[in-house]
Amino acid sequence: MKEFELIERVFKASCIADIHGREDLILGIGDDCAQIQIPPNHDLVFSIDSLVEGRHFPFDADPKAIGYRAVATCVSDLAAMGAKPAFFTLALTLPKSDPQWLSAFAEGMAEIAEPIGLLLMGGDTTQGPLTISLQVHGYVEKGQAVTRAGAQVGDDIYVTGLLGDPAAAVPIMTGEKIVNGELYEYFYEAYWRPTPRLIAGMALKRVVSAMLDISDGVIQDVQHILTASNVGAKLDASCVPISTTLKTWHPEQALTIALTGGDDYELCFTASESAREEIALITNTLHLNCTRIGKVTAQGFHVDGYDGTDIGWQHFASH
Amino acid sequence: MKEFELIERVFKASCIADIHGREDLILGIGDDCAQIQIPPNHDLVFSIDSLVEGRHFPFDADPKAIGYRAVATCVSDLAAMGAKPAFFTLALTLPKSDPQWLSAFAEGMAEIAEPIGLLLMGGDTTQGPLTISLQVHGYVEKGQAVTRAGAQVGDDIYVTGLLGDPAAAVPIMTGEKIVNGELYEYFYEAYWRPTPRLIAGMALKRVVSAMLDISDGVIQDVQHILTASNVGAKLDASCVPISTTLKTWHPEQALTIALTGGDDYELCFTASESAREEIALITNTLHLNCTRIGKVTAQGFHVDGYDGTDIGWQHFASH
Repeated sequence: MKEFELIERVFKASCIADIHGREDLILGIGDDCAQIQIPPNHDLVFSIDSLVEGRHFPFDADPKAIGYRAVATCVSDLAAMGAKPAFFTLALTLPKSDPQWLSAFAEGMAEIAEPIGLLLMGGDTTQGPLTISLQVHGYVEKGQAVTRAGAQVGDDIYVTGLLGDPAAAVPIMTGEKIVNGELYEYFYEAYWRPTPRLIAGMALKRVVSAMLDISDGVIQDVQHILTASNVGAKLDASCVPISTTLKTWHPEQALTIALTGGDDYELCFTASESAREEIALITNTLHLNCTRIGKVTAQGFHVDGYDGTDIGWQHFASH
Repeated sequence: MKEFELIERVFKASCIADIHGREDLILGIGDDCAQIQIPPNHDLVFSIDSLVEGRHFPFDADPKAIGYRAVATCVSDLAAMGAKPAFFTLALTLPKSDPQWLSAFAEGMAEIAEPIGLLLMGGDTTQGPLTISLQVHGYVEKGQAVTRAGAQVGDDIYVTGLLGDPAAAVPIMTGEKIVNGELYEYFYEAYWRPTPRLIAGMALKRVVSAMLDISDGVIQDVQHILTASNVGAKLDASCVPISTTLKTWHPEQALTIALTGGDDYELCFTASESAREEIALITNTLHLNCTRIGKVTAQGFHVDGYDGTDIGWQHFASH
């Protein structure tokens, strides 16, 4: 099958590439470029991520699950800016042209992309080892995007959701660890179907001072805020929210996994103490777990109650 | 080396990631997303492309040459829309963290990106087989982007430059064919350093009816205009511009290579007969070869003087 047919048949026909009814999208898939007009008084934010088979997800995984997770994890970067999802592009490298694989992959993407208004606006398909590069794009009101650089000494440090379940799931998903059916289901969901905190990100953006999403483990990611904001922090490991399932299944390792495992795609943010009430109101309204795990300090970085040496996911680790 | 250091050291330090002095670029590399504000009365156009080692360029090639060519070939899509280059993102998959390779690669990118005002605004580096995904972004005045869909019956069909040299260069670059030093130099330039026709694209956009860049061979690419415009065409193979070097080096195959080889990154466009004088004025001013190779017809597709069965580059060909 020719590349053009491949792309057109699977994606252009799919609902996630239908630009009708969207005033911002002028020209979609099929020309040299796609074209958009940004809504008035908004800026564009975007982020590109690559997922490599065998490194970012297990070999021979369900293509529908891969498609869902690829979009979910990338969109999490939009949530971290407080942006509204708009569209994405896909550079897909595939070992062979496989319409069945592609259809399932597109279905998984559509399942999460469609309800959040994220449309496919361009792509390239090439032959090679399975690699998925996604660029996600969102809109944010001028001046309203949340960066990593605004944390102030004395701010609280928060995380949403529970940490560690997706990282704990990895050896289960690769078959390295065997668990019972109920546990498998639980960790399958945690790993393959993370929930990007989009509405929380949009709602919180006026009250937080800095924000990011946790992809490399909270210990490592918090430090990105500290570096960008030129401040320090003290975290309290005993406050880190961990699921009962993880604590029960792996009591000795749960804390290390939660602090350093990565793949959480929860938000981590800082905010002044005066914002506590508003933050509680927003997260309660969204039925979203939200936990204070530490304070911003003038300098240094310390985690009370954790003496591990693991610091999180290394993209070019030597092992 | 950690991913973050890798990206920051090589690219953020490089001039192609310095957003200072650019009013459109609000937030560059290093946060969850980059952020831009589109210049007033302009739209954003963008295109994503993947280049896989061993498929889109030879194994073990000079990283500087790879960097240059990756940007040049992708930017060609902006030229085809008549857009002004603005910024790009890079998803890079590398077998290993190699600062020397990366520096040379970045240097090659910068050599072409800097003079055309194309800044690096985001990236992701992962470990795996060498794959380069680039998304290029440009600005175009509202309503002025040239698509493939405007060709009218009776229009002339043009190509810029000379066709076939980069495709003829492939077996020389892979070492499959051996030529003398002078020929090697010539084909090296043709393959590794294509010139995206940016100024031509911007200058021509008001007088052409449809335009694209030739990446899969003119026979195949012209048909993309025909399909999008719902018209036919008649090409005259004897008019197709071919270099004396190619005709001399490979007299029997030159025409087939020029028509079907691909990798040209020249513009192919249609325009009404009344635009001939203006097109000549523009292309003469730019010292750019520009050749009429056929006419748009109501339907069908025929190439006078070519009876080959090759129709161009197949991205998922069975061989």
